[in-house]
Amino acid sequence: MLALPPVLSDLIQRLSSLPGIGPKAAERLGLALLRRDLHEVQALADALLACRERVGDCPRCGCLSQDGELCAVCADGFRDGRLLCVVETALDAIALERGGGFKGRYHVLGGALSPLRGVLPEDLRIAQLLARIREESTQEVVLATNASPDGEATALYLKQELLALAQPEDALQAPLFVRITRLARGLPSGAQLDYADAATLHSALEHRTDF
Amino acid sequence: MLALPPVLSDLIQRLSSLPGIGPKAAERLGLALLRRDLHEVQALADALLACRERVGDCPRCGCLSQDGELCAVCADGFRDGRLLCVVETALDAIALERGGGFKGRYHVLGGALSPLRGVLPEDLRIAQLLARIREESTQEVVLATNASPDGEATALYLKQELLALAQPEDALQAPLFVRITRLARGLPSGAQLDYADAATLHSALEHRTDF
Repeated sequence: MLALPPVLSDLIQRLSSLPGIGPKAAERLGLALLRRDLHEVQALADALLACRERVGDCPRCGCLSQDGELCAVCADGFRDGRLLCVVETALDAIALERGGGFKGRYHVLGGALSPLRGVLPEDLRIAQLLARIREESTQEVVLATNASPDGEATALYLKQELLALAQPEDALQAPLFVRITRLARGLPSGAQLDYADAATLHSALEHRTDF
Repeated sequence: MLALPPVLSDLIQRLSSLPGIGPKAAERLGLALLRRDLHEVQALADALLACRERVGDCPRCGCLSQDGELCAVCADGFRDGRLLCVVETALDAIALERGGGFKGRYHVLGGALSPLRGVLPEDLRIAQLLARIREESTQEVVLATNASPDGEATALYLKQELLALAQPEDALQAPLFVRITRLARGLPSGAQLDYADAATLHSALEHRTDF
């Protein structure tokens, strides 16, 4: 086995620790970078650092934002502030935006409840969510957590919390009337019936719509 | 479509220009890097630059080496200097080393002859190869160019040049006796006959060996 130059071996090892990049792809990448112009590689190295240093959570919703400013959705005055979509991670918000059609704002929980893995309500941005709903007079909350057991449990927990907001024990707090919705469950676009799993077909049949 | 923070979009665009990384994988990588420790990202950025700046061609054979020194194969005193394997690129030498079993040294041409693409003999490290063969009293040259039309043409051209070395027109130069060999052509390991292409089967049958 040919010993590669040590700095190249080091780079290949670092690259192969990234998701979706195996040892073979890391080697191909490392060798390809050798053939790039120096200023191009410099720009990539700078971009890596700039990204890691300057991208963080939006102070309002928790989506990705730059330099601690509001994210693009929160800063967009044409978004409907009364419609709030609750997601587990910023990546979920990005995925929903890619689908298009949602004109409200987002709230990133930072994960899903999972008592087994030690994720409790205080570990998620739930208090901030309830405060936001009060402050922004939200009219509808779309619970867009994953269709996984943890996601479902989180949605159920949030529903209880939101219902408690509607009937506050503290008589001084005004009750809130928030519509609580959940993403539709059914067949994915382009799906074939004979390849769909039983739970999906069950949901699709149960929530069938008029045509 | 959610506008990502500009520094993140920039990084994703740069990543997706790398070989084997599509827009989707670049996005996944960019987002994964946000979750890494700052010092880890810093180390990756440093490794990228160090690699590009310090890795170059071995001054003797053209394989990859660091800081202008001899490569690992040329620096290895246990390699048989009388056996020289001629490859198109440093990547080919790495691939052959991975196969193992070759105890000689390499010579990287820097490509294959291709008159249509304007690659002529003077663009390749052919003069250096001939000089090396004289200086190092090479006894066998393995022509390990690719099994492609350009690679075959390059091997044929090199064979003529090597034969000319054996019968120099200049009577003052001593003739050299160099064995010229070529990589075997046949079925790849693990191949199934019914999936092999016609040219491969033809070669495999033509160059059949005693068993």
